[in-house]
Amino acid sequence: MRSFLGRDILSLKDFSRDEFLRVFQVAEDLKPYARDRRNTDLLKNKTLLTAFYQPSTRTRLSTEAAMHRLGGHVLGFSDAKMTRAGDFYQESIKDTFHMLEYYADVIAIRHFQQGAPAEAARWASVPVINCGDGWGEHPTQVLTDLYTIWLEKGTLDGLRVLCVGDMRMRTMHSILYAASQFDLSADVVSPPEMSLLPEFKAELDAMGVSYREVPSVADCLADADVIYMEPVVQADYTQSRVERGSETGRTPEAYRVTRPLLADRAKRDAIILHSLPRMDELPEDVDETRHQRYWVEAFNGVVMRMALLSLVLGAAE
Amino acid sequence: MRSFLGRDILSLKDFSRDEFLRVFQVAEDLKPYARDRRNTDLLKNKTLLTAFYQPSTRTRLSTEAAMHRLGGHVLGFSDAKMTRAGDFYQESIKDTFHMLEYYADVIAIRHFQQGAPAEAARWASVPVINCGDGWGEHPTQVLTDLYTIWLEKGTLDGLRVLCVGDMRMRTMHSILYAASQFDLSADVVSPPEMSLLPEFKAELDAMGVSYREVPSVADCLADADVIYMEPVVQADYTQSRVERGSETGRTPEAYRVTRPLLADRAKRDAIILHSLPRMDELPEDVDETRHQRYWVEAFNGVVMRMALLSLVLGAAE
Amino acid sequence: MRSFLGRDILSLKDFSRDEFLRVFQVAEDLKPYARDRRNTDLLKNKTLLTAFYQPSTRTRLSTEAAMHRLGGHVLGFSDAKMTRAGDFYQESIKDTFHMLEYYADVIAIRHFQQGAPAEAARWASVPVINCGDGWGEHPTQVLTDLYTIWLEKGTLDGLRVLCVGDMRMRTMHSILYAASQFDLSADVVSPPEMSLLPEFKAELDAMGVSYREVPSVADCLADADVIYMEPVVQADYTQSRVERGSETGRTPEAYRVTRPLLADRAKRDAIILHSLPRMDELPEDVDETRHQRYWVEAFNGVVMRMALLSLVLGAAE
Repeated sequence: MRSFLGRDILSLKDFSRDEFLRVFQVAEDLKPYARDRRNTDLLKNKTLLTAFYQPSTRTRLSTEAAMHRLGGHVLGFSDAKMTRAGDFYQESIKDTFHMLEYYADVIAIRHFQQGAPAEAARWASVPVINCGDGWGEHPTQVLTDLYTIWLEKGTLDGLRVLCVGDMRMRTMHSILYAASQFDLSADVVSPPEMSLLPEFKAELDAMGVSYREVPSVADCLADADVIYMEPVVQADYTQSRVERGSETGRTPEAYRVTRPLLADRAKRDAIILHSLPRMDELPEDVDETRHQRYWVEAFNGVVMRMALLSLVLGAAE
Repeated sequence: MRSFLGRDILSLKDFSRDEFLRVFQVAEDLKPYARDRRNTDLLKNKTLLTAFYQPSTRTRLSTEAAMHRLGGHVLGFSDAKMTRAGDFYQESIKDTFHMLEYYADVIAIRHFQQGAPAEAARWASVPVINCGDGWGEHPTQVLTDLYTIWLEKGTLDGLRVLCVGDMRMRTMHSILYAASQFDLSADVVSPPEMSLLPEFKAELDAMGVSYREVPSVADCLADADVIYMEPVVQADYTQSRVERGSETGRTPEAYRVTRPLLADRAKRDAIILHSLPRMDELPEDVDETRHQRYWVEAFNGVVMRMALLSLVLGAAE
Repeated sequence: MRSFLGRDILSLKDFSRDEFLRVFQVAEDLKPYARDRRNTDLLKNKTLLTAFYQPSTRTRLSTEAAMHRLGGHVLGFSDAKMTRAGDFYQESIKDTFHMLEYYADVIAIRHFQQGAPAEAARWASVPVINCGDGWGEHPTQVLTDLYTIWLEKGTLDGLRVLCVGDMRMRTMHSILYAASQFDLSADVVSPPEMSLLPEFKAELDAMGVSYREVPSVADCLADADVIYMEPVVQADYTQSRVERGSETGRTPEAYRVTRPLLADRAKRDAIILHSLPRMDELPEDVDETRHQRYWVEAFNGVVMRMALLSLVLGAAE
């Protein structure tokens, strides 16, 4: 297993089975600080820079929260318009990161353009963490999700994951890459126009990932140990939430996970993950079912990022 | 008196006389750090999240400054557009705060919608501090103001407060609620279209608050121990400050406090508070009078927030 | 030499030769922390407020990075629209800084209006650092640049500096003021519409600064020990970088420094500084030449700001 010290976290294609398990173990070691709500001095002498070229609540704040829990310092930007580096075409990633690398000891980047974090890592001498790059990947989110499954199920082997949503999304890419390292098989449900791209399927086939494309949630819910969701309807910001009909269901039934459907078909111990925010694909009354695990997933997001920061900065091994 | 540990600060309707005085005392205890300009380690292991859905300079920065003075960590957002949680209708307060509660040990929220902080507090397991909610309340500002009066006058009893401005504003609500716990009587001066709402008057009557509605500042200035101001003219951002005529007086004379009027009618020891920013209701030449207390009010804003953070996080009792 | 404790850093007109050298020495003393990538506790008890009324990446982040390296706390705003103080005409600098001075122990300000930092310093009792004011000055950037020259050349005497770009820019003002304290002579190359203003020339003459206005880089490159650059073409945000033709050269040849020109005419040990971002006046293939010093200039930007913060806050003398 390669050392994590100084390493960029760009893609889950990079991660071996042992590396996944190592990260989970470090997360377990650090979890008590988050659970007991106290900051440590572990990374007191280190600084995190968050370079977010797109708005984000969860990913940026959970990464910053992790650094604060570890006693470190945080600076950065959360909106491209507030920086001269705003437009990708305006200042090159090279020029921007040749500068930013002097301002911190680790850089977390979200960018609207796939591949931007890898380009940044070419030029920065400090570790770069991909916090989502366009249609690319979202490794810190999916490490959080896999960690949550591992905790809740005790293993990542012998599980069937039902992936519902837009299969072009970066989280879907990251989780299916990760499936290659475990005995995870996937049922994939999405609207036809949001299905897995041919080049991505070829990649999964080459990696030996086992997956089936299924028309609707109802068709495969009974087999699922884990239900992994993303919205298929994007927020329409010209309408209020009520006008958008979040209750009346703009998401086609085939891509929704509802309380009656769960009661009718789901395994008793099936768990639901959703990185949120949600539209009507996951109604609020599901929150009160035994299947809901998305709140603990949010908590685990801080713990996982504590583990990653500690590992790449050498405070954990 | 209830303990402040873990308590939400949502409304001054919640505060008893003893609780007000307890908060003032803790502020006095912590003031030397702010006055001597040094940070402490009192809340070193704690993190504050500022969730500001509306722009703010004073309230956000003074709350953050207080947390820094106490040695704590701060993260958050200061503009709803930078977050996925931006539009109230876009992600529910429930979903947002079920996430944010894991990122920090206390949350300060400003929201454009009245009641949003109370809704947030329903879902977050950490203390929530209301930093202004629409037409609702603004308890941290008004605690600052009451603390300033208490310091300057030595008491909150036996005083007459002249409230001038838009009576629908949240600061006016909070201060009049607080009046119920002290022997404070109020003279209320506002344009007719900005007068106290009938339901709010009914509430004040039920609480036994003594107030009079008066047509103009001139009519009651002579009785005032404290002059408590808010603008009645809102900034017109399409005009420059000069065009807006801040010197020539767009605010009707009835709602202005000027230097000649003060010289002519005010008690010698009357004090003026204004949470700022101001328009022309309070001309700059008043700054050099003996009545001005709005700069020390700004300083006290940091001290008061140090007290509140220490109390709800258990660093003071 | 006046003490730096509590001093405002507003203009390089204020700096004597000894003071420049003192700042450089303190930077040398503090550099190991930045080079070894570790934060100290030197300013642990102090707080920096960044009041940026205009977007900035480099200046804001390097100032904040410096404060973090020194163990201090940072708060502020990076976009005027996020504050009530947004528009210069909206709230007076007096009212804003009478408030901000209570929130921190030193304030770094960038403002679109020349003179705003000096006005802020009139009202704040804590040190104010000018981080760029309209067409005014940019002392922290130019101190960084002079420090870089001093390090690379071992001296600031007996050097000829070629200044290329828009001579109305604040960096050009600051560096030419500084030239008066050293045996620095300047060749100044700019488009006619961007040349030195008459009143500024009169000021330089009065200060005894030696400078020549030269039509093109090619005319004086052979004499230059230092090439000091700013763009003459501003980014056109309606076009993508490719459409803008950054490779095909919208900047007239007279104001560009290219690899062939350097190979043909430059002194072997001439160095190039550029505060970045750049347009096509400095093509990327120059990065691989022996003349490039703009990456180390970015690093030195953090070190210089560490020195300035330490000096004005009394942690260095």
